[in-house]
Amino acid sequence: MSVINAIPSPVRLTAIASPGQPEPTPELEQLYRGFEREMLVPLWTEIGDLMPMHPKSKASAHVWRWDRLVQLANEAGRIVPVGRGGERRAIALANPALGGRPFATPTLWAAIQYLMPGEDAPEHRHTQHAFRFIVEGEGVWTVVNGDSVRMSRGDFLPQGGWNWHAHHNASIEPMAWIDGLDIPFSSYTESQFFEVGRDKLDPQEYIKPARSRSERLWAHPGLRPVSQQADQAATPLLAYRWEDTDRALSEQLALEDEGYSATLSPGHAAVRYTNPMNGRDVLPTIRCEMHRIRSGAHTRTKREVGSSVIQVFDGQGSVTVGEHQWEVKRGDMFVIPSWQPFTAICAADHASLDLFRFSDTPIVEAVHAYREQFDTP
Amino acid sequence: MSVINAIPSPVRLTAIASPGQPEPTPELEQLYRGFEREMLVPLWTEIGDLMPMHPKSKASAHVWRWDRLVQLANEAGRIVPVGRGGERRAIALANPALGGRPFATPTLWAAIQYLMPGEDAPEHRHTQHAFRFIVEGEGVWTVVNGDSVRMSRGDFLPQGGWNWHAHHNASIEPMAWIDGLDIPFSSYTESQFFEVGRDKLDPQEYIKPARSRSERLWAHPGLRPVSQQADQAATPLLAYRWEDTDRALSEQLALEDEGYSATLSPGHAAVRYTNPMNGRDVLPTIRCEMHRIRSGAHTRTKREVGSSVIQVFDGQGSVTVGEHQWEVKRGDMFVIPSWQPFTAICAADHASLDLFRFSDTPIVEAVHAYREQFDTP
Amino acid sequence: MSVINAIPSPVRLTAIASPGQPEPTPELEQLYRGFEREMLVPLWTEIGDLMPMHPKSKASAHVWRWDRLVQLANEAGRIVPVGRGGERRAIALANPALGGRPFATPTLWAAIQYLMPGEDAPEHRHTQHAFRFIVEGEGVWTVVNGDSVRMSRGDFLPQGGWNWHAHHNASIEPMAWIDGLDIPFSSYTESQFFEVGRDKLDPQEYIKPARSRSERLWAHPGLRPVSQQADQAATPLLAYRWEDTDRALSEQLALEDEGYSATLSPGHAAVRYTNPMNGRDVLPTIRCEMHRIRSGAHTRTKREVGSSVIQVFDGQGSVTVGEHQWEVKRGDMFVIPSWQPFTAICAADHASLDLFRFSDTPIVEAVHAYREQFDTP
Amino acid sequence: MSVINAIPSPVRLTAIASPGQPEPTPELEQLYRGFEREMLVPLWTEIGDLMPMHPKSKASAHVWRWDRLVQLANEAGRIVPVGRGGERRAIALANPALGGRPFATPTLWAAIQYLMPGEDAPEHRHTQHAFRFIVEGEGVWTVVNGDSVRMSRGDFLPQGGWNWHAHHNASIEPMAWIDGLDIPFSSYTESQFFEVGRDKLDPQEYIKPARSRSERLWAHPGLRPVSQQADQAATPLLAYRWEDTDRALSEQLALEDEGYSATLSPGHAAVRYTNPMNGRDVLPTIRCEMHRIRSGAHTRTKREVGSSVIQVFDGQGSVTVGEHQWEVKRGDMFVIPSWQPFTAICAADHASLDLFRFSDTPIVEAVHAYREQFDTP
Repeated sequence: MSVINAIPSPVRLTAIASPGQPEPTPELEQLYRGFEREMLVPLWTEIGDLMPMHPKSKASAHVWRWDRLVQLANEAGRIVPVGRGGERRAIALANPALGGRPFATPTLWAAIQYLMPGEDAPEHRHTQHAFRFIVEGEGVWTVVNGDSVRMSRGDFLPQGGWNWHAHHNASIEPMAWIDGLDIPFSSYTESQFFEVGRDKLDPQEYIKPARSRSERLWAHPGLRPVSQQADQAATPLLAYRWEDTDRALSEQLALEDEGYSATLSPGHAAVRYTNPMNGRDVLPTIRCEMHRIRSGAHTRTKREVGSSVIQVFDGQGSVTVGEHQWEVKRGDMFVIPSWQPFTAICAADHASLDLFRFSDTPIVEAVHAYREQFDTP
Repeated sequence: MSVINAIPSPVRLTAIASPGQPEPTPELEQLYRGFEREMLVPLWTEIGDLMPMHPKSKASAHVWRWDRLVQLANEAGRIVPVGRGGERRAIALANPALGGRPFATPTLWAAIQYLMPGEDAPEHRHTQHAFRFIVEGEGVWTVVNGDSVRMSRGDFLPQGGWNWHAHHNASIEPMAWIDGLDIPFSSYTESQFFEVGRDKLDPQEYIKPARSRSERLWAHPGLRPVSQQADQAATPLLAYRWEDTDRALSEQLALEDEGYSATLSPGHAAVRYTNPMNGRDVLPTIRCEMHRIRSGAHTRTKREVGSSVIQVFDGQGSVTVGEHQWEVKRGDMFVIPSWQPFTAICAADHASLDLFRFSDTPIVEAVHAYREQFDTP
Repeated sequence: MSVINAIPSPVRLTAIASPGQPEPTPELEQLYRGFEREMLVPLWTEIGDLMPMHPKSKASAHVWRWDRLVQLANEAGRIVPVGRGGERRAIALANPALGGRPFATPTLWAAIQYLMPGEDAPEHRHTQHAFRFIVEGEGVWTVVNGDSVRMSRGDFLPQGGWNWHAHHNASIEPMAWIDGLDIPFSSYTESQFFEVGRDKLDPQEYIKPARSRSERLWAHPGLRPVSQQADQAATPLLAYRWEDTDRALSEQLALEDEGYSATLSPGHAAVRYTNPMNGRDVLPTIRCEMHRIRSGAHTRTKREVGSSVIQVFDGQGSVTVGEHQWEVKRGDMFVIPSWQPFTAICAADHASLDLFRFSDTPIVEAVHAYREQFDTP
Repeated sequence: MSVINAIPSPVRLTAIASPGQPEPTPELEQLYRGFEREMLVPLWTEIGDLMPMHPKSKASAHVWRWDRLVQLANEAGRIVPVGRGGERRAIALANPALGGRPFATPTLWAAIQYLMPGEDAPEHRHTQHAFRFIVEGEGVWTVVNGDSVRMSRGDFLPQGGWNWHAHHNASIEPMAWIDGLDIPFSSYTESQFFEVGRDKLDPQEYIKPARSRSERLWAHPGLRPVSQQADQAATPLLAYRWEDTDRALSEQLALEDEGYSATLSPGHAAVRYTNPMNGRDVLPTIRCEMHRIRSGAHTRTKREVGSSVIQVFDGQGSVTVGEHQWEVKRGDMFVIPSWQPFTAICAADHASLDLFRFSDTPIVEAVHAYREQFDTP
């Protein structure tokens, strides 16, 4: 192997006259050629990009419309089989500013997954942390380490890395849902492991229980099974059901109406999905929350370090991300790049705007880099 | 601003006949065009790259020779002034496989910094975590929040994010040292803040104490000043002196000679620089260690998730990173990409091979993604 | 104040001939008199008691029968008023081996509390951590910081230290329940603060909601209100309802029947009440759990460091604590001293034996002193 | 075993006329007899003692004079042998208000230990956490798990529970030092385990190194041996030397003189001995600190939850504990009961007053019960 040939030059440096830069001279050009030969780049030509005064995201704010996503997923359902190798019929949001890679944000993967009636997505496991969120439909079960988990509208199914999992559509309709993973972050940190499982589940794994074993063990408020002692970084609870989430949000707004402090700001309720073992985020790398803005209300305009993806779960409204503003409705997805101000408003003729949000905040917090700022109107 | 025009297409998808891919047909091509229009990319064309069986680093193993670094830094010293805007005369290692960006590894910045006699590098602060390590020379003081810290051969000076700092060369010789930062990681996570400080230190800050105030408060083994209660994520100790590091490594080898378990493997001693407030890594994103391999000994061959940069502090030997093998000596720097096996051997005619190592392990550990594997010879 | 007079002698030391003791001589007696004058006691005369091979509890195993407790509480209800000064009509279990002090175990307080129809127990707060558990009846509301919490059979109401609280009986029947507190531990560590509140609640605090505000905010499995960010050492959830506890226990036994690992041992289900903010014990000093042993089954015989109090919630069975064995039924209470082996058996003619258990394990674990041991039958 | 006979009555309750107590009547007397028969005690007769407004310590402030301690220890050295059974020639401070038990405070044991020339104290281990502090003399080595640790004036030797240890006096003089343990707390929580070791060390363990192996591994400021990964609750560093402690205190006062914030209050420096693995207290149950008050200066008057024992290491001064005030000098020991205000003043004709202090603060903090209050003069 010829290593020498494999080495490209770094970016070609050009001596230019500009503030903070040394005077362009033949000597400087000569020095820059020397840097290039030795695979070196000076700080002084790059500092503005590398060390800005505040985050300037490479990603752009963008919206994907649910009807277009479903239509393309449906076409894929007709002509692209699901099987080993491709593994999943998942179609990822590619942020327009991230060079065509299937990354919704620098750290987050967001995709629509689609299964035709009777189809199976084969078993595998990977260190990437994942979740599914179901904006509409039902009929698919995800089987995690042999535990069958129902997927219905409004349900949130987190799944920590390195657990075996497969999906099968037990209904007579196709079904779509969204997958969120830390694939871009895992790829960036080069920490991924992947293993292929069985091509087909055992017959008894095709049962369709309303509640998974994980829920029967763990979905009791404040109650921990004493037999389950060893803490895990990712949640052992494999489904967070819509009726619980909905009730929690309704109660926050009702408490606000009664004069108590329960919401983030007037008319803005929110719950975070947490690991019952430790009260922390469900996944070590992804924060997941459901927000509800009541009719006519709006969120406080906020910037924060790190990026988010939002899917509208219900209602209609208007969202502003940096310089962009969109009218959004059920299923629409959009991204909030790092440090871009975000506001959501619920349309006055809708009862509420429900937003499912996921973000890379646990990563940012783990390295003590989190900052937030509320913009005064 | 025309947002529409700013949107590039994602990577152009081509229907191809290959295992795990759907049959190329006009219909499939049509589907792929639809994906492109909507800024979507399917998983099945990308999975091999995104979700490999184990990490396959985008970075390459590479070595930079100290004599070349110093020579170029010296030339830069002659013709490139240090001042506001460029901020530092720092010249960064650009990994040959990372597209010419000044990134030693995907997460780590490593640079040689150079100050001419009497020069000042102006004050600033940034959220990026940093350290300096001095492989040779002396005469520069780093002033951190007004505390003057001497820099001499073998010293390690960590500096947590958001502390004001400046450098000044108080001697009549130029001085070179290396800077390590998490600039690529901060840039990737888009979490950077930067602030410009004073252009010139106050006269009384040009003192040259042998020990900084931080050392006088904190550099006493196992002793914490009771007045300093609030824990910080980054170490409050601004210098770890060579005489302490050297003694600690010597003692480990002496204990091994006496029959006690003190080394990592026979002939391989190592200390980690830690935050005395919590015993954890000095910086939330960078692990720093000094390793000593005694004459003729070698380290165990190890792979680990995450990347490292090593500078030879003293001695000579041979190092193997993946398929590469190099003879190295004082000052030489090289990178170990994620999951590439690494071994170091001390030359039989040298007393020891001392390696200063820094890595992104705290990030990997914080998200519970660390794995390591020892290769059997 | 004459301090001199206030000083008693330590235990009078007598020189005796016994293994491990110095030879009794006049000189030794003389030395012992010197020790006494100077308020000194040698280790060698005390070590057997102070530093035994394993814990030998000063407390004794003992059972209190519920019918007798209720009968005496009822008599107290007739003749002892509830009011400021006495504060509560609470009657505490006094472990027979603890010198008549109202301590169920060295660390734990357990009492029956009793309110007559229409009665109020006045508001106060204290640093001692407390809970209520209701083995039968209903009609009382506990008002914690203005939040009215219903008390019904099977409910568990934890209440961290330093929260204002009052009780009022809104029904036309008397009601009894048990209080558990860390009064002996707080007394021992001398860490108690107490403050008197209002003598009477505001009229609007006499509401009788089925669910308290704390439940409406917090009793949703795995869901955290995003508005509640600051972690507290004690749980913010003020009631854990019987229907949740019952369902969780039933599910564990059903999962066991289906062949999955969900119980502590065959036929023995258990849940721990936890703080949803961090997944840890509801109170910093008291662990609370509900155990269910199915018909004919038994627990594994276990010793552990620290003491427990158990109240039978339902069913009948036989329990063994050290050398004691008792038949127990609803409401009966007994203590398990440190390191005494404990076994419970459910009578074959009862569906299950439900045991509410509280213990000082969080204290023992906090200082890393926990040990357990299962006795082989 | 006749359990019935073993049961004493609780404290005999007498119906009395006093505020907060029910009217004394024959009926009430009758009720109290019923309580006694059933081993019950009402809260309303005990609450003033059990739940005071703030801690009122059962312990009393008291001082023990070093010359008397040494004199009695010396007499014991002449007539009481050291050996298996008695285990140690240790003579404990018995707080005058704690009923003659060898407890300096409710939680802490403090004793003078004494070894004659050539004597051995036999090996054992126990779960109680311990330390030695040497106010004067030298010549004894403590052997912990085979590691010989020198004991010299000013040294602090912590020793976590369950480590084998023995002492031997290698000099031709007797030697005294103090032992601090959590014996009262372990006894109270009934968590003690004890094991007898070898009666005699191996010949090679009678070496007398200046530095123990633990120091050679761990006593390097901020440096952790990479081979020692598993964290322990108690410190792995077995000696904290006086020269380090002295230097740290001197530097704090020097920094104060130079205008920097380094002391607790003007003229009052202090260091805490910490576990280098985690920066926390050296022992899970005992906090240990060295305080220095400079000539003529005083500490701020402070109350805190929990109890302390102080030994004067050097200098002379005046200390106030609650209503007591004493002139103290080298070796004198005194206790500070919970919540009693404490002030120390260094005599104007002494350079400094050095106080070694140990307390049960880690226990209090572990259960979140710590409070402190500074009294305004």
